[in-house]
Amino acid sequence: MPTSAVASRRRFPSKSRVVGELKEFLGDRVSTAPAILDQHGRDESYHAGHRPDVVVFCETTEEAARTVALCARDRIPVIPFGTGTSLEGHVAALEGGVCVDLSRMDRVLAVNPEDLDCTVEAGVTRRRLNEHLRDTGLFFPVDPGADASLGGMAATRASGTNAVRYGTMRELVLDLKVVLADGRVIQTGTRSRKSSAGYDLTRLFVGSEGTLGIATEVTLRLFGHPESIVSAVCSFPTVDAAVRTVIATTHAGVPVARVELMDALSMECFNSWGKTSYAETPALFLEFHGTPASAAEQAETVSQLAQEFGGRDFAWSANQEERNQLWRARHDLLYALMARWPGRKSLTTDVCVPISRLAECIAETNTDIAAHSSIPAPIAGHVGDGNFHIAFMVDPDNPEEIREAAVLHDRLVRRALAMGGTCTGEHGIGYGKMEYLEIERGEGVGVMQALKQALDPHNIMNPGKIVPFPNQRSILHQVA
Amino acid sequence: MPTSAVASRRRFPSKSRVVGELKEFLGDRVSTAPAILDQHGRDESYHAGHRPDVVVFCETTEEAARTVALCARDRIPVIPFGTGTSLEGHVAALEGGVCVDLSRMDRVLAVNPEDLDCTVEAGVTRRRLNEHLRDTGLFFPVDPGADASLGGMAATRASGTNAVRYGTMRELVLDLKVVLADGRVIQTGTRSRKSSAGYDLTRLFVGSEGTLGIATEVTLRLFGHPESIVSAVCSFPTVDAAVRTVIATTHAGVPVARVELMDALSMECFNSWGKTSYAETPALFLEFHGTPASAAEQAETVSQLAQEFGGRDFAWSANQEERNQLWRARHDLLYALMARWPGRKSLTTDVCVPISRLAECIAETNTDIAAHSSIPAPIAGHVGDGNFHIAFMVDPDNPEEIREAAVLHDRLVRRALAMGGTCTGEHGIGYGKMEYLEIERGEGVGVMQALKQALDPHNIMNPGKIVPFPNQRSILHQVA
Repeated sequence: MPTSAVASRRRFPSKSRVVGELKEFLGDRVSTAPAILDQHGRDESYHAGHRPDVVVFCETTEEAARTVALCARDRIPVIPFGTGTSLEGHVAALEGGVCVDLSRMDRVLAVNPEDLDCTVEAGVTRRRLNEHLRDTGLFFPVDPGADASLGGMAATRASGTNAVRYGTMRELVLDLKVVLADGRVIQTGTRSRKSSAGYDLTRLFVGSEGTLGIATEVTLRLFGHPESIVSAVCSFPTVDAAVRTVIATTHAGVPVARVELMDALSMECFNSWGKTSYAETPALFLEFHGTPASAAEQAETVSQLAQEFGGRDFAWSANQEERNQLWRARHDLLYALMARWPGRKSLTTDVCVPISRLAECIAETNTDIAAHSSIPAPIAGHVGDGNFHIAFMVDPDNPEEIREAAVLHDRLVRRALAMGGTCTGEHGIGYGKMEYLEIERGEGVGVMQALKQALDPHNIMNPGKIVPFPNQRSILHQVA
Repeated sequence: MPTSAVASRRRFPSKSRVVGELKEFLGDRVSTAPAILDQHGRDESYHAGHRPDVVVFCETTEEAARTVALCARDRIPVIPFGTGTSLEGHVAALEGGVCVDLSRMDRVLAVNPEDLDCTVEAGVTRRRLNEHLRDTGLFFPVDPGADASLGGMAATRASGTNAVRYGTMRELVLDLKVVLADGRVIQTGTRSRKSSAGYDLTRLFVGSEGTLGIATEVTLRLFGHPESIVSAVCSFPTVDAAVRTVIATTHAGVPVARVELMDALSMECFNSWGKTSYAETPALFLEFHGTPASAAEQAETVSQLAQEFGGRDFAWSANQEERNQLWRARHDLLYALMARWPGRKSLTTDVCVPISRLAECIAETNTDIAAHSSIPAPIAGHVGDGNFHIAFMVDPDNPEEIREAAVLHDRLVRRALAMGGTCTGEHGIGYGKMEYLEIERGEGVGVMQALKQALDPHNIMNPGKIVPFPNQRSILHQVA
């Protein structure tokens, strides 16, 4: 759980010359103002920020390509930036360099209703895309909490509450336009729904966190708005009972659109925040999409299954107002936590395990936290995927608590790995989880390093993230 | 459309010594018998076969790894072999070498019903897996026609009729055990349903056709058998009307499990083969999975949509006997074609386009064939994905016809590419479609070459497939 990185800033050959060259084609869209540099060097996580030397605001792929080519010539690091809402220090300029801000590449380039796809510039955010789609009857389902840019979501392989039904960025990106580390531009795929044509470059760049190139355009699958949406909430005596209900639901073939777990502590926070009176026990929040008949049938089936596992107070509604109220509970969770423990800050992480181990993983984690710490640590998760989040609510001025949270976090990730899980289900590696990636993938990390070296031989693309550059292991990072 | 490749067989340093070394750990599972070599050098396509020098029958990952390490030492090509049912010359030993037959690695290693996944050795075929799963209520949906091995299906990114609902090997492989080109063994992923942990090695190896390593174990997603299955058939005045119905079906959010297009010529062949009396016009074959109520509702919705586009004789059934009879039509199509044109042989290919261009692509193809050829060329396709197959029924003893088919095929692939499509939806590149991959992906092929060189620097893994090794362009292949 590194919260800072010991990085050696690269020798930047004549910064003023490079800034001058960038201004030749970017005009006043080149900034070295300290406030801009600060803002671009850190994300929404607890990891320490690192300022870039320059921020450029690109408006076209050509400008991004020219910027990268110029940096490649002088071996200057390039860090792509969308909305800065990542959670593992992804945008920190560990070795300085040029931050390429893509937020002004915000055009929806094409919507193809017959093909259920669209192409957007990388800076378009998910909310903006869905607003754009409003009149088409279509929507894009991936919702990682923050209103992130679609380029950033592709780069971190984002997902969220709808992934159990609609898939993650891994499944829903059809094609990317990518600026490579030498400034060349490629398309990674086509608009075809399927292809067996060669290596899967799209999936290679999805989740590569800007370390292999910069995605400037993203082609995405879309879905028709369901005719009917039914939301439901149900209380359970234990996390295990809730998870067993989810397993039974999946087996019964119920195509549940969302199924979120909140633990007792989260429900307690939510009640005090939202003035609601849910049972303060583990709960499932569910959503069903379909025709009115099929969505109701799904809700009915899950209601019966929940009862078998001791579920109580199963309440469901197709009414939009009531549905929105229900989901606000889930989406406002972070605010509820901050209101419950004023002055404390959330150290958030995520892991993902096979669902058969999920209840056990959460139970062992709660036992570990209770035995060794008084830090509040509510848990919520995308339980259909075996993915859960934990928020260690620490006093930011208490280094002992931060260290304690780091130790608990370390044991949590190792526990998930020992259960056949992964060190991150949807947040990514950044510079925060590189050690865990090595534990998880072993020799596989060597393959990743070979890929990095092949596509970015001078290590200029977002250096110090995901994997250490060959022969740089342990130079860049030290655990705080 | 190369049907042969001009390959330079590599200098094989002391074949007898290598055979002796292989026998040290494989015993009599090392063969140089001509019949065995012949059988392993060709697949089910029309592409010319090329014998390997030796065939080894591995029974464990360790044996495969030792074989590869030995070949790496002497720079001997290694060609993995499953069932030999590929369609673009994938198993041809263009430069000779050692064929690694994995068919004896046929154990189902684990089935995890709660997690809806399983791990199998690479030689397990899809039918054998589904037989193994029979009592669990689970199934694996990918069905590429042939009873292929799951390792081979991963290697070619196979799909089939269920992909529109359940996904292809791209979506359904969770993890692979892979022997790398230097004999090291890695896992590419975990059993977690989701992960944002680093580069997507699983997706890199899926579809890599044995050119980056050998998959020896495959972890797959499974699904619960639907409670109810309804099959349906419907005739249409034109291909366009059938495709419009499919587009409307997808927009209406009907989660169709299968939707197959047969053109008029295919239906004519089928009637004479199966003694049936379907209308000899384009038809859709459909399948709906769900509860009895939801499957029936889906069929009813599609029936109404079909009528809007001129569909007639919409017939549906939940009866297993009637369903099987219906799907036999689709699955027996190749036999029906061979019976209709005795003595002729099928040159089969596939392309995939955005569905909005599908009807146009098929229409232009039919016009082109009618104008320039008398070769029968029926079309059938996985229309929900925009993927279709064409079978050029040629006289194998008539070189003029074969050349004519090659010209028509060339125009078909270029037409699909011009429509934003891909040169293969599910068959793969092998050595048959390398030229088209270059046209389709342009600079992207350079990236693929860099990946190949990074992971297989001595070009021993299934050489001459997917992309030319850097600096070997145009050495290995010539269009026939």
